[in-house]
Amino acid sequence: MAIPPGVSESDFNQALQEFENIVGSEWVFTSPEAVALYRDTYSPFYDDEGERLTSAAIAPDSSEQVQAIMRVCNRYRIPIYPISTGKNLGYGSAAPAYSGSMVLDLKRMDRILEVDTRNHTVLVEPGVTFFQIYQHFRDNNLELDLDIPDPAWGSLIGHALDRGVAHTYTDFGRDRFSTGCGMEVVLANGDLVRTGTGALETSTMWQHYRYGVGPYVDGIFSQSNFGVVTKMGFWIRPRHRGFRTGYVHVPNYEDLEALIDVECELSNSGINNGMTFFGSDVMSPFAQDPEIRAQLPSSGPLDLAAIDRLRQERNTGFWWAKLDFNAPLKVSAAQWEHCQDVYSAAIPGCWFEEEIALEFPLSEEEKARLNTPGNPEMVHLGMPSLARFRGGNRSPRNPDPDWGHLWFAPLIPKRAEDIFRAQRVFDQAYRERGIDAGVTYFARIPMFWHARVGVFLASLSVGRDIEANRKSREDFLYLVQVAADNGWQEYRTPSFFQTEVMDMTCGFNDHALMRFYETLKDAVDPNGILSAGRYGIWPEHLREEKAPWHKRG
Amino acid sequence: MAIPPGVSESDFNQALQEFENIVGSEWVFTSPEAVALYRDTYSPFYDDEGERLTSAAIAPDSSEQVQAIMRVCNRYRIPIYPISTGKNLGYGSAAPAYSGSMVLDLKRMDRILEVDTRNHTVLVEPGVTFFQIYQHFRDNNLELDLDIPDPAWGSLIGHALDRGVAHTYTDFGRDRFSTGCGMEVVLANGDLVRTGTGALETSTMWQHYRYGVGPYVDGIFSQSNFGVVTKMGFWIRPRHRGFRTGYVHVPNYEDLEALIDVECELSNSGINNGMTFFGSDVMSPFAQDPEIRAQLPSSGPLDLAAIDRLRQERNTGFWWAKLDFNAPLKVSAAQWEHCQDVYSAAIPGCWFEEEIALEFPLSEEEKARLNTPGNPEMVHLGMPSLARFRGGNRSPRNPDPDWGHLWFAPLIPKRAEDIFRAQRVFDQAYRERGIDAGVTYFARIPMFWHARVGVFLASLSVGRDIEANRKSREDFLYLVQVAADNGWQEYRTPSFFQTEVMDMTCGFNDHALMRFYETLKDAVDPNGILSAGRYGIWPEHLREEKAPWHKRG
Repeated sequence: MAIPPGVSESDFNQALQEFENIVGSEWVFTSPEAVALYRDTYSPFYDDEGERLTSAAIAPDSSEQVQAIMRVCNRYRIPIYPISTGKNLGYGSAAPAYSGSMVLDLKRMDRILEVDTRNHTVLVEPGVTFFQIYQHFRDNNLELDLDIPDPAWGSLIGHALDRGVAHTYTDFGRDRFSTGCGMEVVLANGDLVRTGTGALETSTMWQHYRYGVGPYVDGIFSQSNFGVVTKMGFWIRPRHRGFRTGYVHVPNYEDLEALIDVECELSNSGINNGMTFFGSDVMSPFAQDPEIRAQLPSSGPLDLAAIDRLRQERNTGFWWAKLDFNAPLKVSAAQWEHCQDVYSAAIPGCWFEEEIALEFPLSEEEKARLNTPGNPEMVHLGMPSLARFRGGNRSPRNPDPDWGHLWFAPLIPKRAEDIFRAQRVFDQAYRERGIDAGVTYFARIPMFWHARVGVFLASLSVGRDIEANRKSREDFLYLVQVAADNGWQEYRTPSFFQTEVMDMTCGFNDHALMRFYETLKDAVDPNGILSAGRYGIWPEHLREEKAPWHKRG
Repeated sequence: MAIPPGVSESDFNQALQEFENIVGSEWVFTSPEAVALYRDTYSPFYDDEGERLTSAAIAPDSSEQVQAIMRVCNRYRIPIYPISTGKNLGYGSAAPAYSGSMVLDLKRMDRILEVDTRNHTVLVEPGVTFFQIYQHFRDNNLELDLDIPDPAWGSLIGHALDRGVAHTYTDFGRDRFSTGCGMEVVLANGDLVRTGTGALETSTMWQHYRYGVGPYVDGIFSQSNFGVVTKMGFWIRPRHRGFRTGYVHVPNYEDLEALIDVECELSNSGINNGMTFFGSDVMSPFAQDPEIRAQLPSSGPLDLAAIDRLRQERNTGFWWAKLDFNAPLKVSAAQWEHCQDVYSAAIPGCWFEEEIALEFPLSEEEKARLNTPGNPEMVHLGMPSLARFRGGNRSPRNPDPDWGHLWFAPLIPKRAEDIFRAQRVFDQAYRERGIDAGVTYFARIPMFWHARVGVFLASLSVGRDIEANRKSREDFLYLVQVAADNGWQEYRTPSFFQTEVMDMTCGFNDHALMRFYETLKDAVDPNGILSAGRYGIWPEHLREEKAPWHKRG
């Protein structure tokens, strides 16, 4: 049996006994087989020095049990790491940031506590997954929809607290955290807090108004280690009435600037109210045309003149934008028409292409057509799927991936000049590090999941080859530093690299924000038991050893 | 010269000398005439025991000066209360929550630091007002608009930190705080933090992505006393292209339920993307018809049968909803048509009325027509004005108010049954307290400024009659308790009642949220110098005396 760091064996045995009294012995896991389930199968440290491992796990069934567990952890100074479902493999899975921590597995707390069909909100526990809530709506014929990430096996609360993004439209874009409304939190000391209007015992609107009165604290429980969120409310949507997509094509390389700027105007005024993808007609990374692929080396700048000749031969555009409209078809027809008017006025020679126009409820034929694994539209329509997950690491050079990936996820401003610069910068970084880009960075565009920034997502390979994994780790840290040097920050990052990423990207005024986080941490978790090291926030007793900004003095 | 509480005269004199060295002697105010400008002219404690007064004031010009001021305040334990413009008179103006505090007046920090015309953001200092930024856009022919509150003499940052609301559409509804993106904060200890992606020194997207990496802390600086926000970014809008309003009328008293539920569906799916007002055709509080007014006593339930007879005679509806659409007219025509389709299907006998349909830029004639004081549409169109302020306390019984008001602002769920219940509850409370309601509560509906809750706003009179003011204070606290007993919490509250309101409305688990706020307060402001008492958060040395949940033990 593994023992958490800093805990004596006799204390740990005593604590285990107390844990069993709280949750029942069947929900305390110490056997190697059970604990192995929390191992990060995508870890680039797998079987190597530095791998983050779990010592034991405990799965409570209620907030009261979580409170009791926190008290035991404080008594014996046991480091503990809460997870909801731990399913985002490319960002670190279920393994703790501080190796040897126990995992607090909230999977049993999977109750859908409230569903408001008139004002469109839910209140859920951490174990509730997207699949589960979607099924709940369908089983009960509720006229509700929600925004689905890919893949959908994760938890709503976990997705929000990791600040994940999704694809369809909600009140607040596709950013899950900002759809949150009201939290119940077990603090590290075992106290139980309700935020927002939940602070009023008689509250009639805990899921309707997020702030309550006084400071709005919910944000400090995201990407952090200040408490265990045991309930959280979300704003969802009435059932979709229609979905439409349309393409804008532009002829020239330089047209990307206007293509994006006009889209900013349209989306920042709420006209195209879904996610917009951008890509290249002539050099999509998935283009199978051998002649085009010959012009797309894995690194180095493109021969734009040659590509443009091919473009003219094929009579295609250079770039496209794909606009999503989540509205009844009559409304989205007017929205799409307005978008075309504005684009036509701004970009000479642009043209348009209609793609999908769906009215809900879907016919059985449409459902059957859409409900096929691998169809990316499913997720855009709010239908949960694992299809995207399976394709996540697939590429022409690696059609059937049997290994994992590590997400490099720098945020990039939503402006053509920044994208062109990022293409140059990352292409050069890949060449310097000898990373196989698969397809050149010059053919890539960030994903604009967020309202006003893009994520220039790239995956680094992770497998069972220790040397290759080490190379991926070094590549990752190199890329994060290159991005930071250029003013681009990671949007989220794997648990095992959070300290390094915070060090490289939060340096303003001698890491003032990190020091502020540490001040909060010491106040809310004086014994430092909760998720030590998560997002680089270490408890006081580990800070000198673990936090680079302290080590440097 | 007044001396702040807990400070010796010699220490204060020494501190004033240091303050003058920081900002120049002309920006330190100690004379009674200068300090009187910070007096709350609407205070219900005016000239009475318990009035919150300012001892002195200081007006820095930069973040560095604010940092230096914080250091002096810590050295001499001087309580200090930051304000931006202090202009929301009904919620407590510029006077500090802890009487005798110095005011930190940020009015000189009025620079518009960045304006992004392509991705629609601004970065401003605390002294920047809505008038100023609107004028800046117009003077520089910038194709930008922003959401304007009434009145517009206040600060963007102050409005956000008090969590004020406005009227036009933005990405995040009309709630200012949620349009914020990136803060610079001087902490109580004088340290300087940048939140969000501002923590990356080279950041290229401080105003484009609010979270950065790690905990999202911005919320704890709203309605609180944890730091002095010296810069803040906001998401704004591209120039409006069109504005349309339409009325839905319904014939029966009970139709309010469907009128609101359908509106929830439409606004929660983004179809009507502006503010919706609800009111009564037959008993609008501003109805001048003597026959109808005779049916509207200042308290007591309505004779619904009599009112319905009048309604039938006049051939009007019972309730109306006024929908706002902020979109190009072609788009809003489709949105409005869809709204009519959905309403027609849901409510037999409802009918529709078009009101305004404007295309931007406005013609000179339209501008002249709209740009008249007292025209409420101005504010809805994003044109700043003081017209609403001047009418704020006006009523048929008080046509030319010469006194102030105190806002009672309970949040109510957006559901007809809650509104009907609130009408009964507040009518009874008014009768019990002998408050003149002006027009019966049964004729009133909350303001739905927020996305999913309403504010059942009411003003209590404040003047120079000490007895009448005392009655208004007692009435206010009585009403807050009645609201809390029914599950309704204040959305914001005057500085001088914040402790009582937090006590009455944040009781869950033995005031766990207040105790959590206090834990944070002690960590970030150990000497308790900053805005003591704001939103009931008192520093440790004043807690036993001031915080009821501690007094009770």
